[in-house]
Amino acid sequence: MPSGRRGQFSLGTPLLQIAQSLGVDIDSVCGGRGICGRCQVECAEGNFQKHQIVSSKSHLNELTAAEKKYSEKRKVLAENRRLSCHTLLQGDVVIDVPPESQVHKQIVRKEADLRDITLDSTISLHYIDVEEADMHNPKGDMQRLCEALKLEWELSDLEFDLNLLQKLQPILREGDWKVTAAVYDGKRIVDVWPGFKEKVYGLAIDIGSTTVAAHLCDLHTGEVLNSGSLMNPQIRFGEDLMSRVSYVMMHPEGAGEMTEAIRSGLNKLIEQIVAEIDIPLDDVMELVMVGNPIMHHILLGINPVELGGAPFALATDSAVRTRASDMGITINSGGMIYVLPCIAGHVGADAAGVVLSEEPQLQNEITLLVDVGTNAEIVLGNKDWLMACSSPTGPAFEGAQISSGQRAAPGAIERVRIDPLTKEPRFQVIGSELWSNEAGFEESIKKIGVNGICGSGIIEVIAEMYLAGIISKEGVIDGDLATINPRIIPNDRTFSYVLYDDGSGRPDRVISVTQNDVRQIQLGKAALYAGVRLLMDKMGVTQIDRIRLAGAFGSHIDVKHAMVLGLIPDCPLDNVASAGNAAGTGARIALLNKASRNTIETVVRNIEKIETAVEPKFQDYFVGAMAFPHDTDPFPNLFAVVTKPPEKEKRAEEPVEGSRRRRRRRG
Amino acid sequence: MPSGRRGQFSLGTPLLQIAQSLGVDIDSVCGGRGICGRCQVECAEGNFQKHQIVSSKSHLNELTAAEKKYSEKRKVLAENRRLSCHTLLQGDVVIDVPPESQVHKQIVRKEADLRDITLDSTISLHYIDVEEADMHNPKGDMQRLCEALKLEWELSDLEFDLNLLQKLQPILREGDWKVTAAVYDGKRIVDVWPGFKEKVYGLAIDIGSTTVAAHLCDLHTGEVLNSGSLMNPQIRFGEDLMSRVSYVMMHPEGAGEMTEAIRSGLNKLIEQIVAEIDIPLDDVMELVMVGNPIMHHILLGINPVELGGAPFALATDSAVRTRASDMGITINSGGMIYVLPCIAGHVGADAAGVVLSEEPQLQNEITLLVDVGTNAEIVLGNKDWLMACSSPTGPAFEGAQISSGQRAAPGAIERVRIDPLTKEPRFQVIGSELWSNEAGFEESIKKIGVNGICGSGIIEVIAEMYLAGIISKEGVIDGDLATINPRIIPNDRTFSYVLYDDGSGRPDRVISVTQNDVRQIQLGKAALYAGVRLLMDKMGVTQIDRIRLAGAFGSHIDVKHAMVLGLIPDCPLDNVASAGNAAGTGARIALLNKASRNTIETVVRNIEKIETAVEPKFQDYFVGAMAFPHDTDPFPNLFAVVTKPPEKEKRAEEPVEGSRRRRRRRG
Repeated sequence: MPSGRRGQFSLGTPLLQIAQSLGVDIDSVCGGRGICGRCQVECAEGNFQKHQIVSSKSHLNELTAAEKKYSEKRKVLAENRRLSCHTLLQGDVVIDVPPESQVHKQIVRKEADLRDITLDSTISLHYIDVEEADMHNPKGDMQRLCEALKLEWELSDLEFDLNLLQKLQPILREGDWKVTAAVYDGKRIVDVWPGFKEKVYGLAIDIGSTTVAAHLCDLHTGEVLNSGSLMNPQIRFGEDLMSRVSYVMMHPEGAGEMTEAIRSGLNKLIEQIVAEIDIPLDDVMELVMVGNPIMHHILLGINPVELGGAPFALATDSAVRTRASDMGITINSGGMIYVLPCIAGHVGADAAGVVLSEEPQLQNEITLLVDVGTNAEIVLGNKDWLMACSSPTGPAFEGAQISSGQRAAPGAIERVRIDPLTKEPRFQVIGSELWSNEAGFEESIKKIGVNGICGSGIIEVIAEMYLAGIISKEGVIDGDLATINPRIIPNDRTFSYVLYDDGSGRPDRVISVTQNDVRQIQLGKAALYAGVRLLMDKMGVTQIDRIRLAGAFGSHIDVKHAMVLGLIPDCPLDNVASAGNAAGTGARIALLNKASRNTIETVVRNIEKIETAVEPKFQDYFVGAMAFPHDTDPFPNLFAVVTKPPEKEKRAEEPVEGSRRRRRRRG
Repeated sequence: MPSGRRGQFSLGTPLLQIAQSLGVDIDSVCGGRGICGRCQVECAEGNFQKHQIVSSKSHLNELTAAEKKYSEKRKVLAENRRLSCHTLLQGDVVIDVPPESQVHKQIVRKEADLRDITLDSTISLHYIDVEEADMHNPKGDMQRLCEALKLEWELSDLEFDLNLLQKLQPILREGDWKVTAAVYDGKRIVDVWPGFKEKVYGLAIDIGSTTVAAHLCDLHTGEVLNSGSLMNPQIRFGEDLMSRVSYVMMHPEGAGEMTEAIRSGLNKLIEQIVAEIDIPLDDVMELVMVGNPIMHHILLGINPVELGGAPFALATDSAVRTRASDMGITINSGGMIYVLPCIAGHVGADAAGVVLSEEPQLQNEITLLVDVGTNAEIVLGNKDWLMACSSPTGPAFEGAQISSGQRAAPGAIERVRIDPLTKEPRFQVIGSELWSNEAGFEESIKKIGVNGICGSGIIEVIAEMYLAGIISKEGVIDGDLATINPRIIPNDRTFSYVLYDDGSGRPDRVISVTQNDVRQIQLGKAALYAGVRLLMDKMGVTQIDRIRLAGAFGSHIDVKHAMVLGLIPDCPLDNVASAGNAAGTGARIALLNKASRNTIETVVRNIEKIETAVEPKFQDYFVGAMAFPHDTDPFPNLFAVVTKPPEKEKRAEEPVEGSRRRRRRRG
């Protein structure tokens, strides 16, 4: 059990051998020598009607010397546990193989609608007895190693690098010709250790333009043992992607500098993560990485300049497998790197990671995956058809180009509510649990202050302004309301809404939403919506069943307010959620399950890539999407739960030049 | 012609296409674009009874614009020559494909008994039109390159390194999407150049313990364009192999130092060789190397210490294919290195090179291949059976441990004759054409002087001493002869033979052969002979048909004198010859013909390796071989052309301890 496989075997047969001949999934590194303890099983007691046998421990041999030795020298065998390699059949038994004894364990994922990860890493460990060098039978030590791997593990035609050849001989002798070999993908010996070696590790790394996050996994248990992150060191070359590409255009040596920056940053991060839990760097055998196309190219040492302008040509649209040493990444000297494939010039390996994590290709429902950044990466579809595009949303959602915008940090306004009658706001800032109208709020923010509005705050305040009738459907702040609430103040030819005033009288301390702020958000959300509509149009669908928002921004915004703005299309609100760091999860899946690499490579190859820049309809969709939530689309699901504000009559001087402006790709 | 293939084709078909569909071997880099000029053919004129057709140039289209352009822009087309890719069939023709238009050209080797080399290098050049990057069809540039190679050259599933990915995009654009790709072994893209690229090169390198010799070959013509050599920089760590291994044993860091020394030496040598004929280093795509096991290991960065003592275990007994960059060798950034396989712990890749060059595995005659060094590498056999062993001959043959011994250099005695009656010698020194008894000799050597005896000189003088009856069969210098010739002088309990005295009266200027010199040569030649006899014994043969002496020493010694000493077994003298630098030739063959690599790998795998150190019979053979030419073996072939000196009665005090001494392996 649990496989339910059964058979008849001659008495005295070891249980491990029985399991293997029945094709039961059971682990072993030492090849039945009673060293690794991976093949532990339990014998069930009692009369099993279902199998029509009486199972009893007495139908097995006594605990052997090898098992006792294992219990002394390594981990104590739990009650009822046996090493199946040393347990001999002596009668009818029902044998349970506990999950941790299976090679292909399931790693449970919380999200109800997602499949668990099946553990099956590219790196396998094999303990072997190598034939000793002998004058009567002259042969290369490497050939002896390969013969042992073939004889004991049926691994043949193995490749190896020069560096392994260079270190092999002393290792064989140090281990007295007993060594553990690490084999990559059943094809290539990547390292050899003297004696028995049990644990190796891998890292899943998400290289964001702002933040690099890494998770260290035990390749045997799949467990995440430690995580860490660092600010992307490339930031000194430019805050957003496009400014980094421009830097390269102006400084030919810039690309190399940025590659060097991210690689040395990675080396520091990796070193720190393993050091924190006392794991030798040399035991890290593989890295799996995701990132947007520009991060992807710079990481690989490819000048990203082609991605800065049409036709946005990728150097490669396939996954990249390479030796860590070829990238100057210091892990095990034979360590490997796998980089997920980019989908298109502006839809990166991070989006591929999101797809691998969310698996829209397995579902009937039409799923929309959106990663909002200066360029939104958009994937739409289901098991029949997947499409992808990117849309130049601009930096507004990251708080840039917003008068009071700031990064999500203590003191930033992140939640806002506005009373439809009084137009009075209440808000929450990062660092305090209290709403601004609750007692003790001023006290709670004394240290951090109220410094600006972060991305999610901007979404909420503008959505609330629209719902409270302060902004018209077309996005115009209604100056007439200045008479009923002093928070609406004139500002040149337009008006602003004052969200917070610390009373210091200093204008720079006043946090308000200007007409231009609204316009920036409109431009951004219109671009995003237009991209989605374009894909819906291509696919001939009018309704989306399920929406997942990926990335840091996506995990913080309130989906209802996002929909009120028309940032995302209409959809049952219960089916809209954050995907968390889905890109990073995708990297982890690719690290722990080698089959998933072929899966994502195939899926990515079959995704239909749409380039919004050459789609004439994009501009029309863009214009229609400037309004809140949309000029013509009705948003029935949304307004079933949200009261639609009364329509105002269109004002003559409603400025529209912004909406007509052709937007430049932001890279 | 010359393939004799024939067929019927519709008028207007290009001759290149016809040739290819007939399976005629014809070259092309540009894929029929009339750029490379590799596919040139000639049309025969006249009535061909044999083919029953009348062939005429008038049955082909006129010289095309493309061909004229080729003649202007590149090489002028010779009279009657056409570019077959632009020549259209318009009637009956007999077409000659000149040798230089064939892919698999024959490279003629002088030696009558050796096959020519068929040119078929691992590197092929392919000119292609790559589909331009296009927003409507987003795709990686690398994928476009691979598609073009598949479409135009049927090359699929090509691998490539990260460094190619890094440089590809600017190259595609610089070449306006027309590029030439270099493909390694049909499997791997190693470099790409903008536009049309015609010539790439390779180097065949023989890494001797004393000298490193390299030959630069044009991979298209097979021609050796330049050669060069340098003193092996490892000499500063020890003159002979064993002293270098001892250095490593005493200095752990020594191995790394020696690897660094040979690699930087190689880089200098390669740089100089290409610079001399103005070839960019970047156009060198591959190196093929041979060397004895210790040179082989040190070159690859493998500590040779295991080769210094039993069981003399090789790190690998297979050929090594690796990227030049992995070995710190600076040629083309994608350049490759192929190192021939070692045969056994003391029979190296240099011996494998000799086998590849001499091809004993193809012959009916029993061939003996000997490379004399401090360890003699011995291969014996024919098409049915090949065996190999090494024998600790010691440094005597290189002039070391010989009282007047020296390297082969100006002033060294290299030829000697002794009058059987008068026991008077005459000799030649390196640097003069005259014999010492000829008029003008003193004049001719005034500058260089007479400084010592080189290896080949030692062989001759001792052989002549034996033939002149100065030395007994057992190797004892006959003191009784002092009475008839003052050149025989007492020396402790033994005697010496004075070969040259400059009359200065300074003993250190007297060049003589001492009893110990004779003993050293006996020990060396006996070891070599014993090794050969051991193999003959194993193989059950009593007669050798053909002997080839490889290496510098082998190419200088006089085979008759060598046989008189019993350095080599009895054999018809006409069938004994020097193989020249056969190891280097083997490397050149492996460089120019990729199939030969599989050949030598298979042959080496099947060679039976004999370890003399563990063969009890070796010692008996060794003792029997101490005598000149041998204690019991009759040497009929030799004494059919050479007068055997009269036997002397054995002397009581004939010292034999030397012959009984167990000899230590010299590495």
